[in-house]
Formats: sequence, C-alpha cells, structure tokens
Amino acid sequence: MQPQCDLRGLWLLLLSLFLLLFEVVRAGRAVVSCPASCLCASNILSCSKQQLPNVPNSLPSYTALLDLSHNNLSRLRAEWTPTRLTQLRSLLLSHNHLNFISSEAFSPVPNLRYLDLSSNQLRSLDEFLFSELKALEVLLLYNNHIMAVDRSAFDEMAQLQKLYLSQNQISRFPLELVKEGAKLPKLTLLDLSSNKLKDLPLPDLQKLPAWIKNGLYLHNNPLHCDCELYQLFSHWQYRQLSSVMDFQEDLYCLRSKKLYNVFNLSFLNCSEYKERAWEAHLGDTLTIKCDTKQQGMTKVWVTPSNEQVLNVMANGSATVSQDGSLHFQHVQVEDGGVYTCYAMGETFNETLSVELKVHNFTLPGHHDTLNTAYTTLVGCILSVVLVLIYLYLTPCRCWCRGVEKPSSHQGDSLSSSMLSTTPNHDPMAGGDKDDGFDRRVAFLEPAGPGQGQNGKLKPGNTLPVPEATGKGQRRMSDPESVSSVFSDTPIVV
Amino acid sequence: MQPQCDLRGLWLLLLSLFLLLFEVVRAGRAVVSCPASCLCASNILSCSKQQLPNVPNSLPSYTALLDLSHNNLSRLRAEWTPTRLTQLRSLLLSHNHLNFISSEAFSPVPNLRYLDLSSNQLRSLDEFLFSELKALEVLLLYNNHIMAVDRSAFDEMAQLQKLYLSQNQISRFPLELVKEGAKLPKLTLLDLSSNKLKDLPLPDLQKLPAWIKNGLYLHNNPLHCDCELYQLFSHWQYRQLSSVMDFQEDLYCLRSKKLYNVFNLSFLNCSEYKERAWEAHLGDTLTIKCDTKQQGMTKVWVTPSNEQVLNVMANGSATVSQDGSLHFQHVQVEDGGVYTCYAMGETFNETLSVELKVHNFTLPGHHDTLNTAYTTLVGCILSVVLVLIYLYLTPCRCWCRGVEKPSSHQGDSLSSSMLSTTPNHDPMAGGDKDDGFDRRVAFLEPAGPGQGQNGKLKPGNTLPVPEATGKGQRRMSDPESVSSVFSDTPIVV
Repeated sequence: MQPQCDLRGLWLLLLSLFLLLFEVVRAGRAVVSCPASCLCASNILSCSKQQLPNVPNSLPSYTALLDLSHNNLSRLRAEWTPTRLTQLRSLLLSHNHLNFISSEAFSPVPNLRYLDLSSNQLRSLDEFLFSELKALEVLLLYNNHIMAVDRSAFDEMAQLQKLYLSQNQISRFPLELVKEGAKLPKLTLLDLSSNKLKDLPLPDLQKLPAWIKNGLYLHNNPLHCDCELYQLFSHWQYRQLSSVMDFQEDLYCLRSKKLYNVFNLSFLNCSEYKERAWEAHLGDTLTIKCDTKQQGMTKVWVTPSNEQVLNVMANGSATVSQDGSLHFQHVQVEDGGVYTCYAMGETFNETLSVELKVHNFTLPGHHDTLNTAYTTLVGCILSVVLVLIYLYLTPCRCWCRGVEKPSSHQGDSLSSSMLSTTPNHDPMAGGDKDDGFDRRVAFLEPAGPGQGQNGKLKPGNTLPVPEATGKGQRRMSDPESVSSVFSDTPIVV
Repeated sequence: MQPQCDLRGLWLLLLSLFLLLFEVVRAGRAVVSCPASCLCASNILSCSKQQLPNVPNSLPSYTALLDLSHNNLSRLRAEWTPTRLTQLRSLLLSHNHLNFISSEAFSPVPNLRYLDLSSNQLRSLDEFLFSELKALEVLLLYNNHIMAVDRSAFDEMAQLQKLYLSQNQISRFPLELVKEGAKLPKLTLLDLSSNKLKDLPLPDLQKLPAWIKNGLYLHNNPLHCDCELYQLFSHWQYRQLSSVMDFQEDLYCLRSKKLYNVFNLSFLNCSEYKERAWEAHLGDTLTIKCDTKQQGMTKVWVTPSNEQVLNVMANGSATVSQDGSLHFQHVQVEDGGVYTCYAMGETFNETLSVELKVHNFTLPGHHDTLNTAYTTLVGCILSVVLVLIYLYLTPCRCWCRGVEKPSSHQGDSLSSSMLSTTPNHDPMAGGDKDDGFDRRVAFLEPAGPGQGQNGKLKPGNTLPVPEATGKGQRRMSDPESVSSVFSDTPIVV
C-alpha cells in the first residue's frame, strides 16, 4: 500500500498546485474586471453611494472615469490603487470623509484632468501634493477645512485652469497662484469665496490682466473695509467682470464687527470710481493693452478717426503688436482721442475703449535732462583732451627762443609764425615771405606780464618774450575761434 | 380729524407699496442666489443627495455645473428651469428616477457639453430629444431601460464624442450613428455593451475606420455565433483595439441557449484569422489608408527600402495624400513589399505595417474589357451609320440601268464604277478611262440570284442586273474590308 499512498499524495499535491495556479490566474483576471460594488460601462466605473470605507481593491487599468463620491473614505493612501491607471481622466471623491491624502497618492494617475475632492475634511494641502498632476485642468477643493495653502502645493500644474477653494478657512491670499509669469499659467478661475480672507494685496490684484480678475472670486470674505478696496471692485464692476457682477451682493467687508457691502461704504466717503484716460507727452513711447476678459481673443484696434490700426506703421504713429496691444513709438499731438479695441473670442466678443490724452510738450526734465547730461559730458571730455594737448604737445620754449623772431608787423598782441611742411625748415625764411606751402596761425599772448599760461602767474618769468612787451591790454579774441585756446602754442599740422 | 385720517391712509398705502416693491426686488434678487438645498462654489451648484423631488426653482444664470445626482427626480419637464442657463457646461442627473424627459427639456441649456442621465428609468429616446445640444461632447445613458434608439434621437449633435448606452435593453444596432459621413462625425466611443444585441451588420462594421472600432464596445451581448463574427473580432484583436482587448473575456455569443466566448468557437471550425496582403496589378491605381486607432494623428509612411514616402512624387510611384493615405498612381512590380506607417498622436504613437503584392501583369478583363467594350460600341455605331447610308444614299437604279455599262473586265463579282467629282458627269466617259480626278470603288454582288440586299430575298427580282449574271458563287471577301458591306452601292464622297 505504501507506493499507492505516495501516488495519491503526489496527485493531491499536483491538484492543489493546479488549483493554486487557477486562483492566481483568476486573481490576475480579476484586475481587469468590474469591482463588485461598482457599475461598469466600458471605461466608466461608478461606485458612488456604496458606503465604501476604502477604494475597491482591483480597478481595471482602462478606467477613464472613477466615481467614488458619497462613500466613507477617510484616507487616500499612496497604495490606494495597486495598478497604475494611466487612462484615468476624472476622479470623483466628493462627499467622503477624507482627512488625509498621501503626497504620493496621485502618482498612479498621471493623466488626470478632473479631480473632485470637494465636501471632505481636508485641513491642509501639503507641499507638492498635486505636483504630479501635470495634465490636471480642474481641481475641486471647496467645502473642506483647509486653513492654509502651501506655497508649493500647486507647483508644476501647467494645465490647471480652474481651482475651487471656496468654503474653506483660508486667511492668506495665495498671490503666487495668479501673479503674472506664475506657476499656473493657464489659471482662469480661482474661487476663494466664503473663506476668511481679511487683507488682499490690492495693488498686485489691480495689476492682474482682466482674464484672471474675471474669474477671481472673492465674495463672502470678511475683507477689510477701505476706499482702496472700494476702488478695486468698482473698477471690476465697471469692466463687468463676472467675479463681481455675479456676486455683487455677496461682496462684503468687515468694519467694527459689522459686515458692509463693498459698494455701500458711504461712511468712508470714498471718491467715485472714474476710468482714467491714458496720458502721454510728445515723443513718448507707449503701449496700451487690450485687456480682455478672455484669453486668446483676436483683437482689432480702431483709431479715433475710425481707421483700423495695422501691424505695420501706416498713417499715424500707432501699430498693433503681436499680442494685440496698441503701440506708439513717438506719440504725436494728433494721436490723442478714443481708441477702440474689438476683441473676438470663442464664446463672446468684447469692445474696449481707451482714451489717450497727449500733452503738447515733452515731459519736463525728461529729454532735456538727457541732452544737458550729454552736453556736459561732451564738454568735459573736450576740456580734458584740450588740457592734455596743451600739456603734452607744447613745443620746447628753448627752441622757440633760439629763433628770435622779429616782432610782428601787426600792431596788436596777435603774433604769426611761419609753419613749414618740413620739420627742418629754415626759421629765417619766415617773415613776409608767403608761398603756397606755408600757413600762418595766430595766437593770443597772455594779458599781463606777470601772467603765465591760462592766466596763472609764472613763478620765474625769466624768459624774455619780446612780442608781449609794451602791450598792457589783451585784445578780446573771437570766442568761437579755436586758436584763442592755443595762445603761444604753435601746432604742427 | 378727517384730513389726518386720510393722510395716515396715504402713508400706509405708500408704505405697503414700498414693501411690495422691496419684496419684488428681493424676489428678483433671489434668482441669482444659491438655492437652499445646494452647495454653491462660484459657478458650481452641488445639490446631490438631497432627496429633491424636483429641480430647485431658482437657478443662477451663471451656473456652469449643476449636480442633481442621487435625488428623487422623476420627470424633466420643458420648464424645469425658468431661466436660460447659457453658461451651463455639465448637468448631472444620474441616480434619479427619471422616466420622462420633455423633447424641449434641453432648450434652456444650449451650451451643455456633458450630460449624465445614467442610472435612471428611461425607456425610450424620442425623436430629436438631444438635437438642441449642439455642443454636447459626452452623453451618459447607461443603466436605464432603453429598448429602442430612435434614428433621429441624436441628430445634429456634431460635437458628440462619447455616447454610453451600456446596460439597457437595446436589440437593434444603431448603425446610423457610426456609418462614415454619419450624423455624429466626431463620435469616438459608442458603448453598447450589456444590451440585447443579437445580430450585427458585420460587413458594415468591418468597413469602419479603426478609430471608431477602437471605441465600439459590444461585449456582454447575446450575439449570434458564426464564423463571420469570429473573423470580425479576431481582426479587431489583431489590431489590438481597446473595445476587444479590454473585454476579451466578456465578448459572448449565444448558440442553442448557451453562451460562448467569441474567441472559443471550436465547434464551428472557423478558419484562423490572417491579415491579408494588399494585392495589385501592374498599372493599377491604389490607395492604402493608415488606419490608426486615433483620429488626427501625424502619419509618416516608409517604403520597403526604408525611405520616407513624400507628398510629391519622388523615387517610386507612391505619394502620401493629405489625409495620410499611401497613394500609388500606377503600381509597378518594384512597388511590392511591406510599407510601414508611423503615426504620432497626442496620447500614444502607433506603427502599422501593410504588405503590398504586385502581380506582374495587368488585371485580366480589366483594361481589356474596357477596350473590347469600346471596340464593340464603335463597331456598332459604324454599322448603323453604314446601314443608314446604304439605305438612304443608294442612287436610283434606273439611272444606273440607263448607263448599260459593259461588264467588268475582272473575272469575279467585283464591279467598278467611275465616280466623278461633279454631279453632271458623263457616264459614257467611264470604262477604262482613268484620270487623276476619278476614283474607283469595288462592290460585291449578292451571292445567289434569289437574294436581295443583306441576304434577304428580293420579292420581285425583276430588275436585270447584268454584272451578276452567269456567276453562281460569291467570292469570299476579306472580312476586314469595309467595302464588303457596301456591295452594289456606289457612294458619292
């Protein structure tokens, strides 16, 4: 019987191995099938309102939409899905009890475009939490308990267009998200309504392009009441920006523990908002943006005389640059007037009017300052050069003395000397002799006998200067004459 | 006291008027505020799981997303929203009890892009039900009780990309939705899984481009088992189309009330699927599509000798047309081989290989047939023309008889007559006289004495034909000779 028992044991072993293998295959197969608690329609997995305490174990890799809303999830760990879901576009996790999301939770879903985390219990957004979601376009985080937005939480989300942070506890305005050239270049909607914002970076907000301000929701916040705030929202109201127009009655500010509507601050006596004209001076360079409420619109500018402004310079001094801005190279008086920008977009068109006032003078101290500076500089350099020439190119006086020229036949202090084209010219051949190759240069002598060069006293005054003797007064030379500077100094040309 | 009472009444009237006006303003204001049962985050209204029997009365006109899922809605009437919601992009109505949708229900939401009607109790889709949704991209109708899809239900939905009809009772395949040049030109996903489809229009399905077949989900249907079905899905499997690859184990067919996996039909002894080469003959014109799984890919064709095929004719006879197809104007033997199409898409790249076999002869009966047809036609027309000429241009026999020409000096039935260029020519000048302006035409006489023109019996045979007498046999004329048709008939040229 011993051999039979052995065989039976072998068979049992083989059978159990086979069953194990079968189970493994089944388990492998299970990865790609529909989880029990979900409703599956090809690439959609709808597992909402199933009282799920965890994400189902096995999710098919082809899933494009996963709806886990209205469940009892409380933590989203790094390993919430064992398989990478590269096809997943939408992940719905709203109406759960999520209070923790691992910083690696979104690694398995790199192609997510829509993430709904609204109506959960999140308290903070960790550094780089969403940084792996490079394709994400919409992020819903409203109705949580978020108190602080980490400055790096939304880093590297180049495609993010809409970020809903409404109904949280945020008290600091995350300016880094909207600043020009910022981390989220495509962000057109940032909902910060119903939070705890008190102070806003008003000058920074005013500088933002209209297409960002149009989607910057700030209503239902205990903002600090002041005229600057009033002016900001009045401007947004004037521009008919959605963020203000849709929630005019919900734009509050807090003063002495009382809430006031931002547009009803009569106790502050703020001046009415008025759209100001652009001011420029003759010759100024100026760029006026067509600040539309939508990005990527086709823009056409029309001059006050109803002519279209072209890309290249035509009649006036205005051109339209590549981004649709109106550009003046040298503003002229006749450029003044109301310019109109017609912007055509996908969903709506927009018309913007801009008034340009040109003052009939150049900006005081603007071009003049530059000219004076240049003149002074040139004058300085010239003086230095002349001084250097005077110092180093003055010929040896001994050589001059050796000549002992007779006094000039002219009756004033001007003396003339014969200049020869050859260095070894005969000084005796000078005087009245005048041929075509000889040139005369006149020099002024110092006024008094005690004065040296440039009016300085000559310490010795030992050298006899026969030409200067007997002349008490120096004749006023022509101030434009260069030779007046080179008195006593013959120059070899 | 009377005047005082009057004044008091007036004041009360004014006060009540004022209060009424205030209420009207408040009511007007209420239209744009957040409904009580909803959670509002700027342009999102989340009213899910609120046990709502109806859509909330007042919805803000700026709403972009309206979530009414998990409620108790049963009917969507035409007047479900009193205000037009032109900003609405997503409408979520899943997990309700909807069994009726008015054909005008979607008039107030013309810009809807995403409509979720899944998990309801819809039984039919009326004519033009969704026709107003010209911007709709995704329509979710899975898990309803839909039995029939009206042929016009999805008319004019030019932007529809994804249509989920899974888990319904549909028994007819809606071919009109996917046919080339069909009503839904952008449809890339049609989910018909888990329905009651038995018969599929297999030849039509096979003709569809791969980018439609890739998203055509047909699993979990009681399809009719046959080899054609097996071949269809085997081809899709070979092409690695998602609709088959993701649901291989769920592709069933029904035979004798038993379900079989489509790829396991051994009892049918179907031949294995083999990708066939393209066959062409010398000089053929041929277009081979780069049948990619995704639309709008950039396509590059490479020849068997690893050279890129260009848009303009270069070395070989192949060019790439604008839609990325490989085009041969005149196939040559050296064009044979394996061509490779490299397609680059947004999400993935694809490589397709196509074998081209060129037979070293022109297609039998292809060009020949055309030539024979032309020859026959030309022959026919020529015969008719000649017969007509024979019938109507035959000169008067009396005139011929009056001439009484001597018999031809030729010993056979061929007779010659002198043709003059002038109508009043002298018949006597005929005979052997031969000048440059005269031409001779030879005609064959009828074979027997009893036969008339074209072999018909002459009823009378009264006219004496001297040339024919004494000749019992007609000499066999050259069958290619046109003159054989014109026997006895002189023609004036």
